[in-house]
Amino acid sequence: MAERITPRAESYSDWYIDIIVQAKLADYSPVKGSMVIRPRGYAIWERMQSTLDRMFKDTGHVNAYFPLLIPMEFINREAEHVEGFAPELAVVTHGGGEELEEPYVVRPTSETIIWSMYKKWIQSYRDLPLLINQWANVMRWEKRTRLFLRTTEFLWQEGHTAHATAAEAEEETLKILNIYQKFAEEYLAIPVLTGKKSASEKFAGAVDTYAIEAMMQDRKALQAGTSHFLGQNFAKAFDVTFQDQNGELDLVWASSWGVSTRLVGALIMAHSDDNGLVLPPRIAPYQVVAIPIFRDKNKEEILAYTDKVVEQLDPSVRHTVDTDNSNSPGWRFAEWEMLGVPVRIEIGPRDMQNSQVVLVRRDTGEKIPVALDDLRERVNTLLQEIQTGIFQRALQFRSDNTHVCETYDQFTALYAEDGPGGFAEMPWDGDPETEARIKADTKATIRVLPFGNEEKAQGKTDPVSGKPARYVAIFAKSY
Amino acid sequence: MAERITPRAESYSDWYIDIIVQAKLADYSPVKGSMVIRPRGYAIWERMQSTLDRMFKDTGHVNAYFPLLIPMEFINREAEHVEGFAPELAVVTHGGGEELEEPYVVRPTSETIIWSMYKKWIQSYRDLPLLINQWANVMRWEKRTRLFLRTTEFLWQEGHTAHATAAEAEEETLKILNIYQKFAEEYLAIPVLTGKKSASEKFAGAVDTYAIEAMMQDRKALQAGTSHFLGQNFAKAFDVTFQDQNGELDLVWASSWGVSTRLVGALIMAHSDDNGLVLPPRIAPYQVVAIPIFRDKNKEEILAYTDKVVEQLDPSVRHTVDTDNSNSPGWRFAEWEMLGVPVRIEIGPRDMQNSQVVLVRRDTGEKIPVALDDLRERVNTLLQEIQTGIFQRALQFRSDNTHVCETYDQFTALYAEDGPGGFAEMPWDGDPETEARIKADTKATIRVLPFGNEEKAQGKTDPVSGKPARYVAIFAKSY
Ligand SMILES: [Zn+2]
Ligand SMILES: [Zn+2]
Repeated sequence: MAERITPRAESYSDWYIDIIVQAKLADYSPVKGSMVIRPRGYAIWERMQSTLDRMFKDTGHVNAYFPLLIPMEFINREAEHVEGFAPELAVVTHGGGEELEEPYVVRPTSETIIWSMYKKWIQSYRDLPLLINQWANVMRWEKRTRLFLRTTEFLWQEGHTAHATAAEAEEETLKILNIYQKFAEEYLAIPVLTGKKSASEKFAGAVDTYAIEAMMQDRKALQAGTSHFLGQNFAKAFDVTFQDQNGELDLVWASSWGVSTRLVGALIMAHSDDNGLVLPPRIAPYQVVAIPIFRDKNKEEILAYTDKVVEQLDPSVRHTVDTDNSNSPGWRFAEWEMLGVPVRIEIGPRDMQNSQVVLVRRDTGEKIPVALDDLRERVNTLLQEIQTGIFQRALQFRSDNTHVCETYDQFTALYAEDGPGGFAEMPWDGDPETEARIKADTKATIRVLPFGNEEKAQGKTDPVSGKPARYVAIFAKSY
Repeated sequence: MAERITPRAESYSDWYIDIIVQAKLADYSPVKGSMVIRPRGYAIWERMQSTLDRMFKDTGHVNAYFPLLIPMEFINREAEHVEGFAPELAVVTHGGGEELEEPYVVRPTSETIIWSMYKKWIQSYRDLPLLINQWANVMRWEKRTRLFLRTTEFLWQEGHTAHATAAEAEEETLKILNIYQKFAEEYLAIPVLTGKKSASEKFAGAVDTYAIEAMMQDRKALQAGTSHFLGQNFAKAFDVTFQDQNGELDLVWASSWGVSTRLVGALIMAHSDDNGLVLPPRIAPYQVVAIPIFRDKNKEEILAYTDKVVEQLDPSVRHTVDTDNSNSPGWRFAEWEMLGVPVRIEIGPRDMQNSQVVLVRRDTGEKIPVALDDLRERVNTLLQEIQTGIFQRALQFRSDNTHVCETYDQFTALYAEDGPGGFAEMPWDGDPETEARIKADTKATIRVLPFGNEEKAQGKTDPVSGKPARYVAIFAKSY
């Protein structure tokens, strides 16, 4: 490795940026706050896309594409929506060499333009539900940006569904939350908490926002996906009604939901180490790299043996072969470790003599000699072991860093300058003022109100206000 | 069918829009010149995307993502580029509630932003070639728009490659042209002419532009894809040099190439008929629709038999079953014809008794009774026959409507008010003034200078100028 990755213990945020830049996942661009997603970073996003896209289609959703530009006036129609997004808008004022009569905004999210179309498309209950998703770029003018986590432009999917009843729209909202959780845990190997957001943290225009929240290695929370029950707010704003089965006119019910390229940042921060990226096998663009070690005199033999080795692999295993020996074996191993490939196959002269290879796990560094005959099965099970191992390690880490706080002293100690941080479970009276005081004191906010927390709150007291608790909330400092 | 599709003979352009709107492929949006791509249209685009993406990756290309916004100053750096694109730019002047110090343009194409990054990424011959593609939205402010064919915003892929030598960049340019031709002919079933553009028709900033040109059913030409050899123009504009193997500093060579959602328009106009869409099987989202014909009394039996029929199909055949019998069989057949599904399987009580079904070809209307035992094989071969049949019909049509013109009278007669139109092959002296005169007289332009046309021109005379011909060009009126 030519360049050094800052160790996490030295600076977690430098470590994060070093990995992105050195693994060539992304780069800074000449456009303020926008990044370039380089091929290696985009390959990870493509695997996220194709996996989620399949999950959405398997549950009846279809893709479509709506305009990038939105008439400014549309944003203004939903009171909370404009309040939330107005400060972050990018505005197009000129087109084709002329000043526009009405300015357009670059979409920060597409509820308004999509509901203006739903008005045209929905007349009767027979037109419902509409289950549409869009893969798109969006833009929110951010003052402080960080590669993948918060950029002025980002890529995402946004689902926008329309339903005849509140119950159906709520069911959809939770169905998607469930897909997000499954995707985060089973593919990204990131355990997530799920639940509702408090009113102060919900989406501008939603009735209820649900989220998946993950813990990063610095013990901060990262909101990794949100699913909103929008009630009839956007149907009202765009006058979208339908004739129900009794011939009566009702407003349509809605959900919207999204995950973004922020997930790439979450993936890096959840699993990687001081040697570079650590990718879970199910999301890794390459799951296996074969590295033949040879000199000029044995090049042909070793490469022929490498071909034999690679032919043993299950055809479904995504693999590559590194035949460039212009650097030392140690340098090459470190390079592929930095890129996060889950399994390295080392193939040297002695391995060839013994009809074996050495497998090296990226996540633990464990070296596993395997006979050629056993390779296929061993690699297949090893990839599963790594996937599970990475998830379990993250789950253990979260468990170790989640604290039940009975007193506010316990809580403030967690988030003190030299405190351990992490997730705190604490009763809350439901008052936004209490929430605001906690944030002012500690910078910790309510990440989620987990399912079932209201029952858990019964008989408990909010240690901040001394009032009866209505919720048991999960607090953390967050990205 | 509730609504009527305007017959082609009555108005080709109304017919085109009727199909798009009634098949719900796209819709007009409240944003001037932008369209909404509805799920049925987007499904066609997704199949185009996945097919092309595979072809690009199989030839060593990788995907990445660059910013939507481009500093206005970048566009100004390449003289021809700014001249070509300045009139079509959308400009962002405000962000985050403040006026920007320097305005950004919404990308009309990404050469400038990408070459500003290539300057950071390319130092040595070891960094070359760079073979990067981007799937993105772009924006060109158009005065006259038409769904899919010309819209202010459209979706496309844009490849941007960097090479150490002119020869390599030219080879890449032609390799991609070849991929575009193969895709158009083998998947879209649209025969295309390939060749170079004349100087007046080339991309703003290119040394040479190559194109694939297709004939629509109204005998006009449609440019369906372009591949540009950019020489060192953008390397000069962004000062992108590399150290070659001899340690000398050289400017980098470039290509760029793209196809867009315009291809969906081409697909519609090339094959469809007065009953609606006609889709080639290899690009159709559904290749087969099974339509059971039943009443309440035999519903269970017929649907059970339908299950048996569908199980016979090859698992690779994309199919759907229409079990909604609230309309008459005739209405349902017409509906699926309008949607362009290549093969309809009609399943009625008599079919069930005889252990057979009736296949109906969308392209010819031919009805083919098939025994259940023969269904799998028959459907597989039928899909191939339809794919080939559609292509051959389009090829015959182009051949019937391509005319070799020895005199300018022959030529002008083709493009007279009541002339037949089509493609004209005519010698050209290579003078832009001759080309401009022809355009002024007839509205026909040079679509391509086919490969080998210069040899063919030897000894011939340009019938317009009377001067010796340098080329034999293909002319047509175009979209
Ligand atoms: Zn504790
Ligand atoms: Zn003729």
